[in-house]
Amino acid sequence: MSDPAVLDPVLDRIDADLPAAVERLFALLRIPSISTDPAHAADCAAAADWLAQDLRDMGFDARTYPTAGRPMVVGRGGDGGPHLLFYGHYDVQPVDPLNLWNHPPFEPRLEETPQGQVIRARGAADDKGQLMTFLEACRAWKMVHGRLPCRLTIFLEGEEESGSPSLVPFLEANRDLLTADLALICDTDLFDRDTPAITTRLRGLLGEEVTITGPAMDLHSGMYGGAAINPIRVLARILASLHDETGRVTLPGFYDGVEDPSPDIRAQWDALGFDEAAFLGAVGLSVPAGEAGRGVLESIWARPTCEINGITGGYQGAGFKTVLPAKASAKVSFRLVGRQDPLAVREAFRAHVRAMLPPDCRAEFRDHGASPASVMDLSHPAFEKARAALSAEWPRPAAFTGSGGSIPVAGYFRTVLGMDSLLTGFGLDDDLIHSPNEKYDLRSFHKGIRSWARILAALT
Amino acid sequence: MSDPAVLDPVLDRIDADLPAAVERLFALLRIPSISTDPAHAADCAAAADWLAQDLRDMGFDARTYPTAGRPMVVGRGGDGGPHLLFYGHYDVQPVDPLNLWNHPPFEPRLEETPQGQVIRARGAADDKGQLMTFLEACRAWKMVHGRLPCRLTIFLEGEEESGSPSLVPFLEANRDLLTADLALICDTDLFDRDTPAITTRLRGLLGEEVTITGPAMDLHSGMYGGAAINPIRVLARILASLHDETGRVTLPGFYDGVEDPSPDIRAQWDALGFDEAAFLGAVGLSVPAGEAGRGVLESIWARPTCEINGITGGYQGAGFKTVLPAKASAKVSFRLVGRQDPLAVREAFRAHVRAMLPPDCRAEFRDHGASPASVMDLSHPAFEKARAALSAEWPRPAAFTGSGGSIPVAGYFRTVLGMDSLLTGFGLDDDLIHSPNEKYDLRSFHKGIRSWARILAALT
Repeated sequence: MSDPAVLDPVLDRIDADLPAAVERLFALLRIPSISTDPAHAADCAAAADWLAQDLRDMGFDARTYPTAGRPMVVGRGGDGGPHLLFYGHYDVQPVDPLNLWNHPPFEPRLEETPQGQVIRARGAADDKGQLMTFLEACRAWKMVHGRLPCRLTIFLEGEEESGSPSLVPFLEANRDLLTADLALICDTDLFDRDTPAITTRLRGLLGEEVTITGPAMDLHSGMYGGAAINPIRVLARILASLHDETGRVTLPGFYDGVEDPSPDIRAQWDALGFDEAAFLGAVGLSVPAGEAGRGVLESIWARPTCEINGITGGYQGAGFKTVLPAKASAKVSFRLVGRQDPLAVREAFRAHVRAMLPPDCRAEFRDHGASPASVMDLSHPAFEKARAALSAEWPRPAAFTGSGGSIPVAGYFRTVLGMDSLLTGFGLDDDLIHSPNEKYDLRSFHKGIRSWARILAALT
Repeated sequence: MSDPAVLDPVLDRIDADLPAAVERLFALLRIPSISTDPAHAADCAAAADWLAQDLRDMGFDARTYPTAGRPMVVGRGGDGGPHLLFYGHYDVQPVDPLNLWNHPPFEPRLEETPQGQVIRARGAADDKGQLMTFLEACRAWKMVHGRLPCRLTIFLEGEEESGSPSLVPFLEANRDLLTADLALICDTDLFDRDTPAITTRLRGLLGEEVTITGPAMDLHSGMYGGAAINPIRVLARILASLHDETGRVTLPGFYDGVEDPSPDIRAQWDALGFDEAAFLGAVGLSVPAGEAGRGVLESIWARPTCEINGITGGYQGAGFKTVLPAKASAKVSFRLVGRQDPLAVREAFRAHVRAMLPPDCRAEFRDHGASPASVMDLSHPAFEKARAALSAEWPRPAAFTGSGGSIPVAGYFRTVLGMDSLLTGFGLDDDLIHSPNEKYDLRSFHKGIRSWARILAALT
C-alpha cells in the first residue's frame, strides 16, 4: 500500500505545478510531429529531441535512437523496486481537413467548455497529453523526493500513427535495453468521465480477402444468364453461411479458446452501469446485433466476431448494366479473443470457402495480417494495486475492462519482450482524436498525473 | 407459296447486283453516325438523309422526321397484299478504343478471312449491313417487277445504341403512319453459320437496385464489431436467399406465367444440335449453372433468372480497413419469360427484402426499368411461311429460337401499335458488334438479301 507520507507531498506538488506542466505540454504540442508525412520528418526529430532533453532535465539517462523512419526516445533512470517500462508515442495524426479546425492545430490553448477547461490542439489527447501525464508524475516525484520512485525506462515511439514499421525491429534489436518487469501504456480512455479503467483484454485481428472467379470474362446477362455461374451469387452464399441464426460464427472450431469472463470480471462490468441504449443510439441503432443473449459490452470485449468490411463485384456505377461478372471479392475480418489461434481460424475460413465453391469457380485468398488477442495475466499483483490506486483518485472505482480493438504494441511487448502491459489512460470518447479540434480535458491531464503518482506509489 | 417465276428473277438480280449493293452499303458505312456522342449529331442526320434519299430513289415516299434526339426515317411504298413494317437502325456504337482497330472504322473494306470475305467497318453488322439486306431485296424486286412486292413501311431509327429515348413518343404520335399487319426486324443473328433463325421469344427485364442501411455512419469494427449490425452481412443473407439449392428463384409467385416450351418447339431446339460444351467452354466454364435438370438453351431461351449484376459496400481499395459500413447495395436483375408480370416480380422482390430486414436496417429501392417478355403468336401464318423461305435459302432448316436478351422495340410494337414482330437476321457470334474490328460476312449480306426476297415472296 502507498505510504501517505511518500505520496501526499507528490500529489500536492502536482497540484501546485499544474500551470507549469500545461506550459511544458504546450511546448511539445507546438511541434507538428506528423509521422505519416515525410515533410514533417524534421518536426518528428524535434519532438524526439525535446522529449529526450526533458527526460535528461529530470535526471534520466536519455537519448534518441535513429531508425529507418522516425527516431525512438529511450530514457533510463531510478533504481530499486520493480523495473517498469513506460510506453507512449510523440507522433500525431495529420490535421486535414484544416478548414474544420476552429484555430490552428499546432497553437495549443486552454478553452472553457460546459464540461470545464480543455487543452485544444492536435495531439492534446493522442498521445502527447497522455504521455506527459506520466512524465509529470515522475518530475513531481523527483522534485519532492530527490529521486525517481523505482527503476524506470521511458520508451517513446514516433511512428504509432503510421503503422509502427520500426517498432518490432527496434524491440528485437534492443531487448536488453527495453525488457522490464511490466510495461505501462498510456494510450487508452477512461470508461467514462468519472470511472477509470485498466484495459486487460484486447481483441486480436485476422484479415482475409477472398476473390471468387467464375467465367473467364464479364458476360452479358441476357446471353448467359441462366447458363453461366455468377461469382457474386456464389460469394453472397458463402458470406451468408458464416453466421447462424443466433449470430454465432459457423466455422468449425472457431470458438476453441474462447472463454466466458469470470464471475468477478462480469461483476465489475455489470457495476459499470454501461448504457447500451445510449451507446447504440449514438450511431443510429437500437438493438445489439451480436450473438443472441449477449450484451454489448460482452460482445465487444469478450466475444469474437466475423465481419465483412468490404465487398465488390460487377457494375457499381450510376444506372444499370446487365453484366454477369467474371469475379467478386470481399474483405473479411475476424476479431479474436482469449486463446483463439488466428492461423487455425484462417485455415477454417479458407476450407469453408473452398467447400462451398460450385463447379467452375475458384477462390483466391489474400492475407491481411493475423494477430492473437492480448489477455493480461491478472494474477500479477500490479493490476489490483493499480486498480486501487486509480479508485482512490477518481469518483468511481476503477474496473478491469476490455477493448474491442487492438493495441499492437501490447502484443509485441508480450511476444518480443515477454512482458505484460498495464494499459490505463485518461482520454474521453469526445476527445476528437484523429479529427479536427482534438482536445484533452484539463481534468484528464491533472488527474492523470495524480493517477500515475498513485500507481507508482502503489507499485513500489 | 412463292411463285418461282416471280422469285427466281429477283434472286438472279440480287446475285448480279451484289458488287453495287456492297458499294451502297460502303457509302452508308462511311457516315460516322454515332448516336450517343453529340459531336456526331450531324453525321446521324446525314445518315438519315442518305437513307431517305435511297428510299425515294427506289420509289418510296420517304423523309426524315425530327425528334428531340436523332431523326427517324419513314418511307412508304407499294400496295396490295399484307402491310409490312420493316424496322432497322442507322446509328452505330462508339469506336473507342480506336487503337485496337486494324484500320479506320469508318473506311469500310472487304477483307479475305479463312471463313471467306467480310465487310469490315463500324456498323457493318449492327445494324447498317443488316438493314440494307432488306432495302436491297426491295430494290431488286422493284428493278425486276417494276413495283414493290406489297404495301411496305420502312422505319429506321437513329437512337438504338443510346437507349431509344425518342422511340415510344414517336410511335405514340404516329400510330397511323406506322401500324401495319406485321413488323419485320433485322437485328439478330443466325443460329450458326448454316442455320437461320426466327427469334420468337425474347426475355423481359426487370432491374432493381437495393441499398441496405444500418448504422448512421461508418463504424470502427473493433469498437462496434459484435454490437452493431453490418449491412453487407444483411445484404449477403438476402441475396443468398433468392435461389434455392436447385437454382430456382424463391420469390413467391415468381414462376406464375412461366410455361414449358411445346413439344414441337422443343423438337426444333433439339434438332439444332446445340453444343453446350463449346458454348460454355468459350467463356471458361464447363457446367450449366441454371436450374437443375435444364440445359443451356432452355435456361437461356425459356427460363427466367435472377442475377446480381453488381454489389458494393465498405472498403474496396488496396489493403485492408476494419470498417463496419453504414450501407451496402446491389443491382439485381430478373430476366422474364412467358406471361410473368414484371411489376408483380418487383413487388415480390421488395417484399422479400423487407421481410428479411433485421432491426435497425432500412431498405431503399431504385427502379431500373421493367419490361415483360415478348412471345410471338406462332399461329400467325407468316411465321411458318418465313421459316420455309429461310430454310430454302440456307444449308440447314430454319428454327424458331429464343433469345436470352431483350429487343425493346419488339415489345413496344406490341404494346403501342398492337403488332407482332418477326425477327430474323444474319449476324454471327464473331461479328464483334460493339467492339473494335466489327465485321459482317459478305455471305451474310448476300444470302440475307436473298432471304428477304424469299420471305417477301412467301408473305405476299
